[in-house]
Amino acid sequence: MAEKSTVQQRILDAAVARFNVQGFHGTSVRDIAEHADVNQALISYYFGSKHKLMERILTGFFEGYIEMLETAVARRPISGCYFDKLVRTAWEVLIYQCRRREAARFAHREMTLDTTLVREIMTTYLMREKHLLALIFSEAYEAGEMTVQPTELFVLQLKELLTVPFLHPQYIQELYQRQVDDRDFLDDYLSTVVHWLSLYFQPTVISYEELYGMAVDHVTNQNESTD
Amino acid sequence: MAEKSTVQQRILDAAVARFNVQGFHGTSVRDIAEHADVNQALISYYFGSKHKLMERILTGFFEGYIEMLETAVARRPISGCYFDKLVRTAWEVLIYQCRRREAARFAHREMTLDTTLVREIMTTYLMREKHLLALIFSEAYEAGEMTVQPTELFVLQLKELLTVPFLHPQYIQELYQRQVDDRDFLDDYLSTVVHWLSLYFQPTVISYEELYGMAVDHVTNQNESTD
Repeated sequence: MAEKSTVQQRILDAAVARFNVQGFHGTSVRDIAEHADVNQALISYYFGSKHKLMERILTGFFEGYIEMLETAVARRPISGCYFDKLVRTAWEVLIYQCRRREAARFAHREMTLDTTLVREIMTTYLMREKHLLALIFSEAYEAGEMTVQPTELFVLQLKELLTVPFLHPQYIQELYQRQVDDRDFLDDYLSTVVHWLSLYFQPTVISYEELYGMAVDHVTNQNESTD
Repeated sequence: MAEKSTVQQRILDAAVARFNVQGFHGTSVRDIAEHADVNQALISYYFGSKHKLMERILTGFFEGYIEMLETAVARRPISGCYFDKLVRTAWEVLIYQCRRREAARFAHREMTLDTTLVREIMTTYLMREKHLLALIFSEAYEAGEMTVQPTELFVLQLKELLTVPFLHPQYIQELYQRQVDDRDFLDDYLSTVVHWLSLYFQPTVISYEELYGMAVDHVTNQNESTD
């Protein structure tokens, strides 16, 4: 969201923060204006209605997400293994959300409602997400790397494992005393996901530890900070 | 919730259904009264405010959930294996939610907000849930059945895998053309969870297929219907 001007970004950030505390309907445009420290009229000027503002947050989040996922899926695996590619993609999904953790929490929660906007986002973005994730598994399967025929439910589980920390940051903070935007948490979390994934793969020429190290190094070099 | 009278139950069901479409703040007491086909005054009479009504839905859901989980965790494994106990517990968690799928969807979504009520439920119920789930893993680990030291993140992942279908029933319906309250879906879903769990266990005297069959038979005999 770096391309947006400061005022617009401040409005978007304030809106998302208030929506996460009070819910969308429980938040007024006045609340948002106060928390963004801008004149209420600017919100109408830039975004129109509160509903349009929510739409911008949701489509902004999912638009960037699908773009990031498309890039990750199109990439050739460094080591020649699809397992490696899968791990790096998983890491990038975690980091993408980590950098937009308030928006991620809001977006994932809104997607559990039954509205016209939700149905539109599903057919526009989540259909594409499902296709992209299934694609990486089918590559791995065709290359003979995976031991189990990947099923749709397997894709669903990967998606949800990568979603959950950002849907429930507060639960994780209160009950596990972990911060989802903490690099240590992300490392530990990825490592359990990688372990889960690795159990479905044939033992490859390169060991799990090596693959994991390579994947993480590669991402770390490109994007050191999580903010 | 079978102990509640018809009118109270109709109000609770209507409230949950409206909350899932419009959100808590977007739903008026009048909406609920209309959908429950009762006089608005009866809602105040039985529940007080809309907020109290929500509290009843949430505590009712989590109270019953923890009770069910305590019973499941206290039970001795049929086959003498903790893997078996774990599978049956997972199945019962799925069935519990399946029977209250609208309440489950609402409860899981509300738990992603940052409110006083949410923090109370976390310390009252979810702390207990975490403890109970960790207990089953530690039994299995101490008995030498599990190959990996179970970590908190592993408990978190199991919890979330069992939560997700009921948080996102609409997503699963639109993108996967599956109904979460369908017995076939639950069987397939449990089988991917069991596969995931089994990968962390030592090969036991009894095979995975036998354990799975036993676990499912046992539950099926007790509670045939999912409604």
